[in-house]
Amino acid sequence: MSDSRFYLDDLHSGQRFISETHAVDAAQIIDFAQQFDPQPFHLDDAAARRTLFGGLAASGWHTAALTMKLLVAGTPIAGGIIGTGGEIAWPRPTRPGDLLRVETEVIEVTRSKSKPDRGIATLRSETKNQRHEVLQTITVRIVVPARSLGQQAAA
Amino acid sequence: MSDSRFYLDDLHSGQRFISETHAVDAAQIIDFAQQFDPQPFHLDDAAARRTLFGGLAASGWHTAALTMKLLVAGTPIAGGIIGTGGEIAWPRPTRPGDLLRVETEVIEVTRSKSKPDRGIATLRSETKNQRHEVLQTITVRIVVPARSLGQQAAA
Repeated sequence: MSDSRFYLDDLHSGQRFISETHAVDAAQIIDFAQQFDPQPFHLDDAAARRTLFGGLAASGWHTAALTMKLLVAGTPIAGGIIGTGGEIAWPRPTRPGDLLRVETEVIEVTRSKSKPDRGIATLRSETKNQRHEVLQTITVRIVVPARSLGQQAAA
Repeated sequence: MSDSRFYLDDLHSGQRFISETHAVDAAQIIDFAQQFDPQPFHLDDAAARRTLFGGLAASGWHTAALTMKLLVAGTPIAGGIIGTGGEIAWPRPTRPGDLLRVETEVIEVTRSKSKPDRGIATLRSETKNQRHEVLQTITVRIVVPARSLGQQAAA
């Protein structure tokens, strides 16, 4: 295992991670919606024009899943990104042609008192498109191993 | 359009909706993870045994997406289920063999003061497996048209 991953000890409030990008197209939006969120505004542009969305829009859960993909690739946390929960908001929908990028900031780092070999980091991620419009914000709490445990586990 | 859908006027605090079920298997878990959350504990049972999860576990976003699928099929809200955001928690992971069911309760219904043709309903959904273990809770605020507008739109 590489030492370049971030352990609890390596994280601090204000630290930022910027992801790579993911280009969204209509086929991806429709494919996800057919599997998980088959509502007219996620499936068909013409039907979507007659709704609040005014045109084809990705499921919020598709935006969330793509955010996770970008976060996993761009945020090398030791032990992986294991969320226990959080708050999510979708200020505007993801559209065909959007180029997503995730900007993440570490909000808080707390070592566990009962289990000092780990702790909780709170991350706030904004998912933006190529016009820097915010499509999603999410605040998640993740479990992160402390360095001593991590090195032991990697041995 | 059918009149059997629920408009804002038809929703009240304490109302409950129970979904159909969805059977999760390892292939679905791995397929979702390859697309959106490619971490070892979501991709490979042997690798997952060496992590906090102790065996193959679905991405939380997969549980969220399957919850949406069950919610959309089982909760006929007029205008569709359009979430603006909410709070999510995963008390335990979804596993291969789990049979998911979503139990939803209406928590609050508020008509918009500025736009009386619509309002916000707050729904709390629990996603449970066949042992009635809670895999996910989510509280979401959705935009719901009032009946007058809905009937006008359906005309």
